[in-house]
Amino acid sequence: FKIGICQLKVTTEKSTNILKARELIQAAAGKGASLILLPEMWNCPYSTDMFAKFAEDFSDIDSAPSLLMLSEVASSLGVTIIGGSVPEKDAGQLYNTCCVFGPNGEFKAKHRKIHLFDMGKPLLGEVQFKESDYISAGKNPTVVDTDFGCIGIGICHDIRFPELAMLYSATGAQLICYPGAFNMSTGAALWELEQRTRQDDSLYVASCSPSRDSAGSYAIWGHSTVVGPMGEIIATTGHDKTVLIADVDYAAIQRTRESFPLESQRRSNIYQFVDVLKESSNS
Amino acid sequence: FKIGICQLKVTTEKSTNILKARELIQAAAGKGASLILLPEMWNCPYSTDMFAKFAEDFSDIDSAPSLLMLSEVASSLGVTIIGGSVPEKDAGQLYNTCCVFGPNGEFKAKHRKIHLFDMGKPLLGEVQFKESDYISAGKNPTVVDTDFGCIGIGICHDIRFPELAMLYSATGAQLICYPGAFNMSTGAALWELEQRTRQDDSLYVASCSPSRDSAGSYAIWGHSTVVGPMGEIIATTGHDKTVLIADVDYAAIQRTRESFPLESQRRSNIYQFVDVLKESSNS
Repeated sequence: FKIGICQLKVTTEKSTNILKARELIQAAAGKGASLILLPEMWNCPYSTDMFAKFAEDFSDIDSAPSLLMLSEVASSLGVTIIGGSVPEKDAGQLYNTCCVFGPNGEFKAKHRKIHLFDMGKPLLGEVQFKESDYISAGKNPTVVDTDFGCIGIGICHDIRFPELAMLYSATGAQLICYPGAFNMSTGAALWELEQRTRQDDSLYVASCSPSRDSAGSYAIWGHSTVVGPMGEIIATTGHDKTVLIADVDYAAIQRTRESFPLESQRRSNIYQFVDVLKESSNS
Repeated sequence: FKIGICQLKVTTEKSTNILKARELIQAAAGKGASLILLPEMWNCPYSTDMFAKFAEDFSDIDSAPSLLMLSEVASSLGVTIIGGSVPEKDAGQLYNTCCVFGPNGEFKAKHRKIHLFDMGKPLLGEVQFKESDYISAGKNPTVVDTDFGCIGIGICHDIRFPELAMLYSATGAQLICYPGAFNMSTGAALWELEQRTRQDDSLYVASCSPSRDSAGSYAIWGHSTVVGPMGEIIATTGHDKTVLIADVDYAAIQRTRESFPLESQRRSNIYQFVDVLKESSNS
């Protein structure tokens, strides 16, 4: 199947962002994509002071214009949408949340960013950023069964924790989607590397960033990418607004694992990885 | 301090290999290296049928000419040597083993390769290879305290298991040394990527390969490399015999961790990583 990655330009107007996102989703579907990925914070400039203003309450989709558009366009086009992220408000808290809609427009899952981006001392000239002053962290990993296989979701800084990908891999994920808005310094140093790194788990990775000229508190790296199970870059782009289309063939996962049976070579008598929530639900 | 990486050309004659290794160690020390790394199977062609013939019994160093040379040259130059690997024979078994010698020539530690390279179906045109038909796997991770900090050791396929690096990082390693002999296909696809991937743990990585024209059952990738704690390549080389010198500054680890405090951002209520041997020795 084809995945479409919508590298949107985010503006300071929510209604414009919704309109432009809809246009890129339509363009991606027009190019044959049946699974479509949006960027992190696609309806809202990436500035901590904007999150509350742009946030939506997910409990009533008719009052959540960003979600409503995703549901309607998924249904009208018959596509599955991994809806990047938007600020979510719930019980007085804000979350950085990805929603997934199926081809009948049905809400399938949401992922609240688990690892918030709190910078320490700037190392590479980064703009100081402490997401947790504004956003609450999600408590659960998210794997969603779709018409396009089992998909794990991480948002931006979530990608820096191999544990999350290991957990998704163990749960049966074939693809991990990372909406993200890496900045210029971490983008150049780590964005591609982190995605290719997930070949440790022999699965597909798709990332989607806003374009560089998006509004917000810092310049965004761009470079949305699709990586295959050997860490190979299948498709990537620059930093401008664009729609990236890539072929995904899950059979490559099986071939890779038959060639490199890493899973059976792990040494559980030396190290073990524990899915804590699963363990506690089993006990 | 400076690390010296000896990308040897391995021949079918053990005495030649020992002589040439000694020459490159001396050359590395002559260029200011005080920590010196050799490749995987530096005294023996990388062919499964050669391992038994070239193996040494480590229990009597005077009858183990490869180890004896390492001890003597470490002492005469006052350097620490991470001795790549040689085939070790012990109680009827063969191991792929790295020995570490300190600047007084003292034997400090050995690491037996934990993850043996057993290929499944060839994916990229690789030569079929099943190391475990000839070699027994090590049972323990190895971290050694040296004059140049706390060093974790992995051999070749050990690098494909992030768990081992996570374990070393948790034990306090500042540098992981991976002697390795990746082949042409996995080398091109994964050798650099795997080393840079270890930035997940914000530490230094040094790898040392034999040169491409080494004797053995397959062509070797070469490209010995030193990677810093942000995944940046500090020094690398091509596939010819050479000595690579790189500056290592452990203060960069601290700076990286202050900038990206990943360790404190891990979510132990969602996932946990268990050092099984440490846990069982504590209980």
